[in-house]
Amino acid sequence: MFTDHYELTMLQAALHSGSAHRRSVFEAFARRLPDGRRYGVVAGTGRLLEGIAEFRFGTRELDFLAARKVVNDETLAWLADFAFSGNIYGYAEGELYFPNSPILSVESTFAEACMLETYLLSVLNHDSAIASAASRMITAAGSRPCIEMGSRRTQEESAVAASRAAVIAGFHSTSNLECGLRYGVLTQGTAAHSFTLLHDSEEEAFRAQLESMGAGTTLLVDTYDVEAAVRKAVALAGPALGGVRLDSGDLLAQAHDVRALLDSLGNVNTRITVTSDLDEFAIAALAAAPVDSYGVGTSLVTGAGAPTASMVYKLVSRAGNDGDFVSVAKAAKNKASVGGKKFALRRLNERGLATAELVGIGELPENDGNDRPLIHEFMHDGVLAPGWTGAEGVRRAAERHAASMAELPGAARRLQRGEPVIPTEYIQPSTVRN
Amino acid sequence: MFTDHYELTMLQAALHSGSAHRRSVFEAFARRLPDGRRYGVVAGTGRLLEGIAEFRFGTRELDFLAARKVVNDETLAWLADFAFSGNIYGYAEGELYFPNSPILSVESTFAEACMLETYLLSVLNHDSAIASAASRMITAAGSRPCIEMGSRRTQEESAVAASRAAVIAGFHSTSNLECGLRYGVLTQGTAAHSFTLLHDSEEEAFRAQLESMGAGTTLLVDTYDVEAAVRKAVALAGPALGGVRLDSGDLLAQAHDVRALLDSLGNVNTRITVTSDLDEFAIAALAAAPVDSYGVGTSLVTGAGAPTASMVYKLVSRAGNDGDFVSVAKAAKNKASVGGKKFALRRLNERGLATAELVGIGELPENDGNDRPLIHEFMHDGVLAPGWTGAEGVRRAAERHAASMAELPGAARRLQRGEPVIPTEYIQPSTVRN
Repeated sequence: MFTDHYELTMLQAALHSGSAHRRSVFEAFARRLPDGRRYGVVAGTGRLLEGIAEFRFGTRELDFLAARKVVNDETLAWLADFAFSGNIYGYAEGELYFPNSPILSVESTFAEACMLETYLLSVLNHDSAIASAASRMITAAGSRPCIEMGSRRTQEESAVAASRAAVIAGFHSTSNLECGLRYGVLTQGTAAHSFTLLHDSEEEAFRAQLESMGAGTTLLVDTYDVEAAVRKAVALAGPALGGVRLDSGDLLAQAHDVRALLDSLGNVNTRITVTSDLDEFAIAALAAAPVDSYGVGTSLVTGAGAPTASMVYKLVSRAGNDGDFVSVAKAAKNKASVGGKKFALRRLNERGLATAELVGIGELPENDGNDRPLIHEFMHDGVLAPGWTGAEGVRRAAERHAASMAELPGAARRLQRGEPVIPTEYIQPSTVRN
Repeated sequence: MFTDHYELTMLQAALHSGSAHRRSVFEAFARRLPDGRRYGVVAGTGRLLEGIAEFRFGTRELDFLAARKVVNDETLAWLADFAFSGNIYGYAEGELYFPNSPILSVESTFAEACMLETYLLSVLNHDSAIASAASRMITAAGSRPCIEMGSRRTQEESAVAASRAAVIAGFHSTSNLECGLRYGVLTQGTAAHSFTLLHDSEEEAFRAQLESMGAGTTLLVDTYDVEAAVRKAVALAGPALGGVRLDSGDLLAQAHDVRALLDSLGNVNTRITVTSDLDEFAIAALAAAPVDSYGVGTSLVTGAGAPTASMVYKLVSRAGNDGDFVSVAKAAKNKASVGGKKFALRRLNERGLATAELVGIGELPENDGNDRPLIHEFMHDGVLAPGWTGAEGVRRAAERHAASMAELPGAARRLQRGEPVIPTEYIQPSTVRN
């Protein structure tokens, strides 16, 4: 029952007026990107579709609503029978978005679309915020792998979703086991400072870890003195030592020192992982340091300053008494056009680089080859299309993200604040052919 | 399995070395408050205790860990039998905290305490961040009720936790139905713009809502023209109209205009609710406006600029081979004292106002009357103490929060950035008596 109280009172009043059964189109979109960001990353779609397919009001929920008198008996009866039976279409998970991109649309009765509002926005707003932050970190990290390890700095279920979103945006792996279990992503981790402190000496701790996990493990070397720890680690593990981890101090200087020390001891293949409160800027600042991988936590799971994507879910058109669709909008922003399904295209130039986000109402115009259609159908009459959910959905979303990033002009990869890297243009179907 | 990969690899290595069974004390605390905040609010404790009491590794989890070879057979066998059997004590939920307040301590074997780390920090870091933000909003709102309505701007399970944390910090109610169901808190809501747009006219929408929910409902009056909507609402509902809601525009000016209009139409008892992207500063700015209640969303659920409380969970002492506890700490910060249970007191002056947070190691010194002990035992040998969880826990936490706030000096209620409003002082037991 991830639903706001008012969704149900609206349902009750709409059932009363009869308008609950009007066919409607709701659209989720962001009016703007977070301050200074050049693009956003759609995430959460697969997770959302899994949830919508199972969205029901059970006995426990209905009893609560009845006891609290949240809604009347007619509404309770409707809720008891509810299962989403409409259509859902929109941007593929992992795809980039820009202001007013029609990211997800729900076509159903008003009543059904209304039930999904809160849940749909929760998922998309959270997961897209994390993926959008993660994507910038991946850009900053270049070819070096990033490991998501922020679970402890966000709510426990958010942690699973954040980890999933990070992997879609290009993270190599996560510390979150539940995410590994649910979505098949790679999990990683070795030991914390407490493990060293538990033992009577650092040497004992290292020995226990090496004996139990093999020389390929990564040893945490900054509990006491880094140089002494690296020497101990190499003495115990030999040249096969997998890696060392630095979690505090001046990472730039330490990475150089530790690399030189490891090399001087013959451990040229021992990797260096750094993990101390990194964000996209700290990662970029370490580009010239001999670091092999980054562990990222707090900044990632809190959206690097933008913890929510600020998407909204608006009724954009609905049937009138005659069954014909009419566009609707708050106040004077109404646009004089027939509502219904929107189309969206990414305009690509002759070099395959994106130059604009084209959005229009009505049917998709015939494609001239350079414009990439962005809208996919995820659910039809309540039935899920294959390939968007579960582990396969995550894997495909990560591929989609990498491919869409490759289309963006280079300015998108600058970390500095700026405008959306391509403009969103509204077009009439007839103007698309060029 | 809200657990980081490395908790399990540490467990494996510690089982191997035998140190996994050493008695240990881990402590959760925040080294600092979010930038500029004067105090923090402990939240999540009840929810956490419910989760720890049920924390198990089931077949699905164990199969995954085995298939991925995350840990060896000895460790899998240990996990299959795991149920937390130690002690947990700390600050009451709703209590205020300051830098280094010993918010929650776990006393058990290393292995058991290690299993709880990620989950414990997820819950406390998220919920305390939300409660800390919510408390400032409540201060800004004075005697006017605040309604939590941010579910759509955060992950769906975070939304339930955020709503719960907001109520602990003084919010009157929430839009989140699941929170109402789980924790017995009051839920509220009426209708959105989409409800008005669904109907052929605003008048039809108002009529439907009034017929279905009665004149005491709150009508949303800013879909088209506010003045016209208020006149329609009063014409349809009469003087019994419960309230009107404003969700856009210049709320300060509109609140004055709408109040004057309602009064001129005889609706002196119709309330005004405002709900447009409010934060603690916007609420404060409306203090002189004729507003009856505030609906708060995005800013609340994202922690008003501080989405995580940055608490850490550190091994502070553990038994050696002889069974005696020794204090441990990373690098040179080790303190020369015998570890174990910490005590904490809030020092109150003769007027009952807090002047310091006193923290010490060892047994609680005898109290002289003015110092309020802060540590409670929540779980003993794995058994929950009564009163901290469920709806009762939330109710008591809200009372605790209000009582603790009343003890703070006035400077705590200023929204401006500043230092923690009372200092944290480390004391030896012998120096406490004064």
